[in-house]
Amino acid sequence: MSKNPIESIQLPSNAPIPLYLNLYGQLKDLIENGQLESGSKLPSIRTMAKNLQVNTVTVIKAYDLLERENLVKKHVGQGTYVSPGTSFEEALEVEQDVPGLEDRPDQAKTYNFASLSPSPELFPVAEIKEYMNRVLEKDRGLAFSYQESQGYLPLRKTLLKPLQENGIHTSEDKIQIISGGQQGIDIIARVLLEFGHCVLVEEPTYPGALAVFQGRGAQVMSISMEKDGVNMDELEEKLKKFKPRFFYAMTNFQNPTGCTYSSEKKKQLLELAQKHNFYILEDSYLEELDYSPFLGNKTPVSPSLKSMDRQERVIYLKSFSKILMPGLRIGFLVLPEPLKAGVLNAKHAADISTSGLIQRTLKLYLDSGRWKNHLNKIKKEYFQRYEILRDFLKSQEEYLDFYDPCGGLSFWARLKVNMSSDQLAEQARIRGVKIASGAHFTSYSKPNPFFRLSFAGINCPRIREGTAILKEILENYSSFPDEYTPLI
Amino acid sequence: MSKNPIESIQLPSNAPIPLYLNLYGQLKDLIENGQLESGSKLPSIRTMAKNLQVNTVTVIKAYDLLERENLVKKHVGQGTYVSPGTSFEEALEVEQDVPGLEDRPDQAKTYNFASLSPSPELFPVAEIKEYMNRVLEKDRGLAFSYQESQGYLPLRKTLLKPLQENGIHTSEDKIQIISGGQQGIDIIARVLLEFGHCVLVEEPTYPGALAVFQGRGAQVMSISMEKDGVNMDELEEKLKKFKPRFFYAMTNFQNPTGCTYSSEKKKQLLELAQKHNFYILEDSYLEELDYSPFLGNKTPVSPSLKSMDRQERVIYLKSFSKILMPGLRIGFLVLPEPLKAGVLNAKHAADISTSGLIQRTLKLYLDSGRWKNHLNKIKKEYFQRYEILRDFLKSQEEYLDFYDPCGGLSFWARLKVNMSSDQLAEQARIRGVKIASGAHFTSYSKPNPFFRLSFAGINCPRIREGTAILKEILENYSSFPDEYTPLI
Repeated sequence: MSKNPIESIQLPSNAPIPLYLNLYGQLKDLIENGQLESGSKLPSIRTMAKNLQVNTVTVIKAYDLLERENLVKKHVGQGTYVSPGTSFEEALEVEQDVPGLEDRPDQAKTYNFASLSPSPELFPVAEIKEYMNRVLEKDRGLAFSYQESQGYLPLRKTLLKPLQENGIHTSEDKIQIISGGQQGIDIIARVLLEFGHCVLVEEPTYPGALAVFQGRGAQVMSISMEKDGVNMDELEEKLKKFKPRFFYAMTNFQNPTGCTYSSEKKKQLLELAQKHNFYILEDSYLEELDYSPFLGNKTPVSPSLKSMDRQERVIYLKSFSKILMPGLRIGFLVLPEPLKAGVLNAKHAADISTSGLIQRTLKLYLDSGRWKNHLNKIKKEYFQRYEILRDFLKSQEEYLDFYDPCGGLSFWARLKVNMSSDQLAEQARIRGVKIASGAHFTSYSKPNPFFRLSFAGINCPRIREGTAILKEILENYSSFPDEYTPLI
Repeated sequence: MSKNPIESIQLPSNAPIPLYLNLYGQLKDLIENGQLESGSKLPSIRTMAKNLQVNTVTVIKAYDLLERENLVKKHVGQGTYVSPGTSFEEALEVEQDVPGLEDRPDQAKTYNFASLSPSPELFPVAEIKEYMNRVLEKDRGLAFSYQESQGYLPLRKTLLKPLQENGIHTSEDKIQIISGGQQGIDIIARVLLEFGHCVLVEEPTYPGALAVFQGRGAQVMSISMEKDGVNMDELEEKLKKFKPRFFYAMTNFQNPTGCTYSSEKKKQLLELAQKHNFYILEDSYLEELDYSPFLGNKTPVSPSLKSMDRQERVIYLKSFSKILMPGLRIGFLVLPEPLKAGVLNAKHAADISTSGLIQRTLKLYLDSGRWKNHLNKIKKEYFQRYEILRDFLKSQEEYLDFYDPCGGLSFWARLKVNMSSDQLAEQARIRGVKIASGAHFTSYSKPNPFFRLSFAGINCPRIREGTAILKEILENYSSFPDEYTPLI
């Protein structure tokens, strides 16, 4: 490879894509495959345009696209620099960090409010082990053969009952087994998103989804979240303007805000999907963790979009990672008829099929009553954690306000004081406390006053210890480097 | 959706991609999501051009791209029709069909020479079960937590020894654990292939790879296979012309031909990779199944490309599906330094991480001596099957010739008589015998005289029964509908 990787860039005028996209793509490759290192400075727009003999606008557009993906950062007056790792790399740390024990001694002393990864001590390991052994005794080698790409038929049939109980009436031929929720997002993107297509997301949203959509070369447009779902006027406006292929939505306990869509907004969403001919990818990652029964006066979360879907507009995505065990790497999609063939091909191209052993084990486990006992057990535990963390946040209203989700695994808070959540996160990190700053959940990762506190992977006593540290930090915020001007 | 889906197509002149690519993309979507049904006729080129007010060349180019992906077929004088399912859908049947028992009663009476899926009765189920239980007793919940996306560190360290024994000297930080070989191909495509990039493949090749590359919107160029590897003149010519990002190659026991690259061609390949600045994705899916030791006078297969790679040009892809058990869904990549970061992100976007339970179990299994015993056991069994099938093919030289791979799990044969392998496959199917016709392994699936006979999933007695049926069919070929004119 040439000394300066930039010199390897060529922009033939006969290329099948516009110059700025071509330049963007080549720079993106150089950054992602490490030839352009973190922190290195890109040539100025003028220099780049001159060397490539293109219009400066071409370079500006290419740099803008790169910045939108956080691959580069512009420093006013200084130029454009390759970002220190993509925000996605940090974000995955945030989302799936393992509250580790033997495996992650480095983690032992941290208070992890950042990770959404559930506590291993809550996993029904003994029961899964029992069913796994049953499968191996019964099915022997078949458990380790390739499975149908659509998924083990008896499992797909078993899933119909819990779906029905949640108001989703479908058939086994519309169910696609997947290797976890992330793969579900990826597979739908493969089927519906070609280069240059538009996809809508909530703002803020799950960074793992942003990474997939950007990886497809899609145009990602975000709609602001409100307490009862996205802003409908903004949504309708962008629908008209960008004609998106689909909208990625977490309608119950949205990640990271915890907000749940009102029935009204859910109805409107379905009407808009029909009117503007787009699909909705409904990510139901922890719908079950609804604490309203424990909270008395609250009303439970409204039913899923899919259960209200009469026009086959909704792709229902279910993962078992948060409510059972992430390590099973299993979930499923409930598909509109027209997407079945495309999804089957995409699944096969992705990894041929999901582990037969896991599929067969999950089938036996779901058939047993134990699944529901497990849900009740973790709901009780998570509710206790929820209450402790909620009371802490209430006690800090001088410094922050927050949204009470009445469910899920995290709180979304907003600093009232003059510091960004990145500053708070850094101060906390020094003290051994991990929080997820709001920057992780936006397509442009600018400092902002929001942050997410998760109680998925930290038990009650440690929540108390960790929040005590956060309390001290908040009380001393005025001593922090004061370089932040709030965005909102 | 509108009555006639074609009417939904719009070609705004301000779209970010050329008109023909835009049209191609929209038609592809309509076909893949089922709105344009199999067998339905596309508008004539003139009509389409007229309705969309574009040049006929635009439509011709779009239809050509669709045909290259087998999404449509042109019938001279009749027009262009949507293909009956993509050849990929059939192809996956061919590659990963489970020689099923309880699971697939329909399969019980077929003689499956089509599938490359190994026989479940050869799987070391009891041993894997034992180690799986050890893991669950030792690691408990951690086995079901999210794992590092790069893979369980102790497993990556364990893999270094067998690699070293095969002349590949690397370090654990260059190893990426993946959920099977197919995912490895997909992940490399995500990192190296953007829309419009060129990738080289062998002709014929593994259809699962074609599907991935076409799914990325890449330009797939194929190089003819010869007995000692691809045609080097053709390769060099296409390297200059198309500047590919990488070359997907199976250098030992290539699928489907069974050919193994000579050391000379392997050396040349590495020199060309350095000279023309491209990577080689070396798919080592059954390198181990080398029967030359049993065959006495033969020399064993030459070492892998990766073991000769001094410039970090080779991405080594290893799957355990064929040599251990497909259902484990596990494999690994050995990466050039510059690709590590991009691959890690792509893996995370694909499915976050590979099952921790499987990774931990495999680690224990590989550490035990049992892994080598298993390899020796299956090699002996497969060699017996190989000999029976080879002797059958020799006895049919009046009707066909074939290549003797001296390893692997299949033979590549060519009909000498006036019938296509599709015709042979159809006649065989009627008699309960499955073979893989050559059309499955080319990017354009035209009838041709080649076919693959695999002995992965069929034991010796059934090989004898199945080949007896094939013998009868070949002897009666002259009675077949005679509508085939050989291509080669």
